[in-house]
Amino acid sequence: MTEIEELAARIRRFTEARDWTRFHTPKNLAMALAGETGELIAELQWLTPEESTRTMTDPDAAARLRSEIADVMIYLTRLADVLGIDLVQASHAKLDESEKRYDVTAYRGSARKAPPLS
Amino acid sequence: MTEIEELAARIRRFTEARDWTRFHTPKNLAMALAGETGELIAELQWLTPEESTRTMTDPDAAARLRSEIADVMIYLTRLADVLGIDLVQASHAKLDESEKRYDVTAYRGSARKAPPLS
Amino acid sequence: MTEIEELAARIRRFTEARDWTRFHTPKNLAMALAGETGELIAELQWLTPEESTRTMTDPDAAARLRSEIADVMIYLTRLADVLGIDLVQASHAKLDESEKRYDVTAYRGSARKAPPLS
Amino acid sequence: MTEIEELAARIRRFTEARDWTRFHTPKNLAMALAGETGELIAELQWLTPEESTRTMTDPDAAARLRSEIADVMIYLTRLADVLGIDLVQASHAKLDESEKRYDVTAYRGSARKAPPLS
Repeated sequence: MTEIEELAARIRRFTEARDWTRFHTPKNLAMALAGETGELIAELQWLTPEESTRTMTDPDAAARLRSEIADVMIYLTRLADVLGIDLVQASHAKLDESEKRYDVTAYRGSARKAPPLS
Repeated sequence: MTEIEELAARIRRFTEARDWTRFHTPKNLAMALAGETGELIAELQWLTPEESTRTMTDPDAAARLRSEIADVMIYLTRLADVLGIDLVQASHAKLDESEKRYDVTAYRGSARKAPPLS
Repeated sequence: MTEIEELAARIRRFTEARDWTRFHTPKNLAMALAGETGELIAELQWLTPEESTRTMTDPDAAARLRSEIADVMIYLTRLADVLGIDLVQASHAKLDESEKRYDVTAYRGSARKAPPLS
Repeated sequence: MTEIEELAARIRRFTEARDWTRFHTPKNLAMALAGETGELIAELQWLTPEESTRTMTDPDAAARLRSEIADVMIYLTRLADVLGIDLVQASHAKLDESEKRYDVTAYRGSARKAPPLS
């Protein structure tokens, strides 16, 4: 069992123990994911990009970021589990595409319109 | 090396090969994550919750969902890597808290105000 | 002065009185908008679509929705003001396009892939 | 009739003419709003804050931003209309609160934890 499978299994047990499975439709989970992403982005909204790179040196900000990132990961893992999608495999498949699409020479140093990772 | 560490390492190499590291501040990556979450949610917005549970039976919708979920996972992995946060460990720490906070007996079957996972 | 211009002017005075203008770059305001949209979506995430249509009959839920929608509107108005975009005019221009793009006969009753408003 | 009421009425006619009213539950519209906010944020994600303040000087970027902001405004107006919320009135009510909460002297120049507008 991979670490993601273990995490997904723990979330599944957590959900079933509280009889919350019926709330966890893909639609609802995608909304929860968006809500948590909103909380994460709010932590960084007033920082300059430079300040955002130093944010983990502040213990309080670091704890909040860790907590918000965990929330996003938990809902993403749960959503993927409910849909039967392997998160890591799907990511590698997407990176296969991105490595072809964003040729190293042509895109080197430029982030203009192209979203760098996918 | 765990599967997440491998994924993070591949994304790091991808980014460095294109000289895009300077674009990958936590602030920018949180924005990219929010943008990708928006694309994911758009896939499910007009479906009923019931339709959303059947969406993977449509090969085209399944491919789009897999692709959008991968995009979210890729930026989340990259953001965590840049911040030095262990995604899986942070998720388990959050679930430790949630298991205490949402007592099984008190919360069974209710999703009223409480966000079920965190 | 239209009601939106008045609202934008009030937000501008509010911001200048606190010397917060330098924080209000389009980038930061777009992040704040996304954060507030996340709080709004969180209010509706565990409701069925039918429950969501009745949510204003609960005074507490109604107050929270009104407050979250106001937050989104305030940041949207501020972002448009900072960019020099007329919100209402831009919306009508987009609807002109949508009315052509989504022919009444062809799209009647179908929301499949097409985002209904734009 | 205010300009927002006119805009809401036009969107209502647009929706009814295509028989899309049943898709426009508050839940679905909040998701559509989040999706459009994601597209807006994606326009600004790789720019520095300084570049983001100059983005309207590029005609292509300006047109894209105008279009994305219009999409957000259209769904926000529609959501408020469906919920029976007056967007401008709700915003002023929120600003009344914010003006009290963020005392001019105490908060001058600081955006630390406090979200500047609400």
